[in-house]
Amino acid sequence: PFPALLLLLKRGRFNRQAQPPRSEPRTGTGPCSADGGGLRAGAGGFRPSRVAVVAKTTRYEFEQQRYRYAGLSEDDLRQLLALKGSNYAGLLERHRIHTKNVEHVVDSLRNERIEVRLVKRREYNEETVRWADAVISAGGDGTMLLAASKVFDKFKPVIGVNTDPERSEGHLCLPVRYTHSFPEALQKLYRGEFRWQWRQRIRLYLEGTGINPVPVDLHEQQLSQEQHSRAHINERFQDQRSDISGPHLLPVRALNEVFIGESLSSRASYYEISVDDGPWEKQKSSGLNVCTGTGSKAWSYNINKVANQAVEEILNIVTNDYNDSLLYSPEEPKMFFSIREPIVNRVFSSSRQRGFSSKVCVRSRCWDACMVVDGGTSFEFNDGAIASILIDTEDALCTVLLEE
Amino acid sequence: PFPALLLLLKRGRFNRQAQPPRSEPRTGTGPCSADGGGLRAGAGGFRPSRVAVVAKTTRYEFEQQRYRYAGLSEDDLRQLLALKGSNYAGLLERHRIHTKNVEHVVDSLRNERIEVRLVKRREYNEETVRWADAVISAGGDGTMLLAASKVFDKFKPVIGVNTDPERSEGHLCLPVRYTHSFPEALQKLYRGEFRWQWRQRIRLYLEGTGINPVPVDLHEQQLSQEQHSRAHINERFQDQRSDISGPHLLPVRALNEVFIGESLSSRASYYEISVDDGPWEKQKSSGLNVCTGTGSKAWSYNINKVANQAVEEILNIVTNDYNDSLLYSPEEPKMFFSIREPIVNRVFSSSRQRGFSSKVCVRSRCWDACMVVDGGTSFEFNDGAIASILIDTEDALCTVLLEE
Repeated sequence: PFPALLLLLKRGRFNRQAQPPRSEPRTGTGPCSADGGGLRAGAGGFRPSRVAVVAKTTRYEFEQQRYRYAGLSEDDLRQLLALKGSNYAGLLERHRIHTKNVEHVVDSLRNERIEVRLVKRREYNEETVRWADAVISAGGDGTMLLAASKVFDKFKPVIGVNTDPERSEGHLCLPVRYTHSFPEALQKLYRGEFRWQWRQRIRLYLEGTGINPVPVDLHEQQLSQEQHSRAHINERFQDQRSDISGPHLLPVRALNEVFIGESLSSRASYYEISVDDGPWEKQKSSGLNVCTGTGSKAWSYNINKVANQAVEEILNIVTNDYNDSLLYSPEEPKMFFSIREPIVNRVFSSSRQRGFSSKVCVRSRCWDACMVVDGGTSFEFNDGAIASILIDTEDALCTVLLEE
Repeated sequence: PFPALLLLLKRGRFNRQAQPPRSEPRTGTGPCSADGGGLRAGAGGFRPSRVAVVAKTTRYEFEQQRYRYAGLSEDDLRQLLALKGSNYAGLLERHRIHTKNVEHVVDSLRNERIEVRLVKRREYNEETVRWADAVISAGGDGTMLLAASKVFDKFKPVIGVNTDPERSEGHLCLPVRYTHSFPEALQKLYRGEFRWQWRQRIRLYLEGTGINPVPVDLHEQQLSQEQHSRAHINERFQDQRSDISGPHLLPVRALNEVFIGESLSSRASYYEISVDDGPWEKQKSSGLNVCTGTGSKAWSYNINKVANQAVEEILNIVTNDYNDSLLYSPEEPKMFFSIREPIVNRVFSSSRQRGFSSKVCVRSRCWDACMVVDGGTSFEFNDGAIASILIDTEDALCTVLLEE
């Protein structure tokens, strides 16, 4: 009875609101497949009753927690940070800004009579997600990744608010203006003045020998590489049967990317890869990154983007080679012709703008033109005149080459 | 009798010297065709008895001559030049340097009991060339062009000495060190420590209606464009029969290039062109340049060389387009894989370093590797483990897009 009651209560909560649509298209513009299109909310808006706000742990809080057990005072902390080259005042200010922005979001929600649970990373779990109608991350892109990592329901909205625009790109978050005017965002949600966006994510299956499907959280533990390896060993799945069972669907979905490679950043990774059921290929590299559209702007972008410097250097080489190719020996009995600034349009064309030749004939259609030799001797060359231009080796100029 | 006597005397002058070879190859290295190869002078050197030295007119001399008729004093000249923005002291210094270098060449020749005729541009003519065994230009590349312009005998050596290395490239002249140690150059010529070089030149035939095969010298007259046009008209060939006769071989040979185009630099040139007896093509352009190997380093080079700026700009556009192409919509149910720094050698290959895919399978051959999701969750992935990576639209993350 309890689950049923919950369900009833839950339905009630969405009274007079549009749920994120399941399968039927709504009226409005945009793609209308529930498989990944965004739909205009249409006449109905979105009005959650319960919102979980996941707030990031600021650097200041992190350092505080780190040294808490050592019984340090604020002053001690400040000196310790200074020793590390960190700016205590800066950290405190960032913490203040973030905290203020989080309060703004929480207050805005509560002013609308929305029930709010404010959680930090450690407290955020799947129970929180089940409780909430929507999840808001208050932090940067990393906090958004965290918030998304516990959501597996494609109809549970996750919204990012960038609480420190100075320090985070926030490209997974709402536009920065809503950070300081969150009620405006809420009003738009209510009025349906928004579009749903489904960000595709990657799933992972693991099989084979000696596998270990238990995840290790890299953030919480701030592990060194060595600790990281040991963490995996400690977590190793006890059930031997995993060795012979089918592929395990791992309990994660990648919003940005999956990276595969040796933990030690200086070690080369050796593996075999098959793309789209193609042939297996043995490879050695610094690792493999497989990303989503969301992740195409993140690490993947930095892996693949063309660095101007490399290209400029290649370009200089090519340009210099080309320019060098324009030069040839004075003793070669061949000519090189160049058309300066050819006009190409419906009427005129220039099949070859430059090239070597043995003979060039020109028929003038000019008004007041010349044929000029070595910039010094000029012949009239107007409409009707025809010139034949060629090299006869009898005309060569004799000169000497002295060694340098 | 006089021409015969001259011939006899001329032959005698080459006693115990090697003439520029006519047809038989000499001993030594290099191509051995009289049609254009350079031959080592071999056992014999080159020892002329009569040398014509063509000296350039310096800018200082030019300005002096220009205002001579106005009866200006040196002081007047200096002020006039200053008004024009020219540096009188600089002009005088250049003139001094050039004059000193010319004297050095002339003295070096006379010290070897060589008969020297020193001529300026106006005095230099075909009679001078006939008289001389060799012609030396004392100036820059322009003076070399002038010296060559009156030489039509492929066995009459023309040698350039750069008398103002600061101001002239001198790429048609001897290496700069000989400017200040000309006796050294003479010794090398005597000892045969040099190579003959035949610089190919272009000849021109003119035919058609209304043609005018009389040349106009552009340097001597320092013509404005208007005066230039009138000069052609004044020189127009009176003989009407030229309109119906065959092609005229013009009395010039281009050492650098032939340029054909409208005299007015801002006017487009219209003509028809046929290259290597190919089809005629109507063209409109800023003119045609046909150069020799010698001229390939001159105007032609500047016409054709690739300017770094244009290419950089093209490059930026292409680079930006490429980088943009790395990004795609978060709502697209496709993955993009990237192999970081693939090692390619005899053993390993990487057929595709990046690309879109629906599915990626990886079999680990790693020692201590991980599969890391969104930089936050890590799975052991060592030798024997197999991962299948794909997108299922059921796993999408629901979020909202608010208008800016």
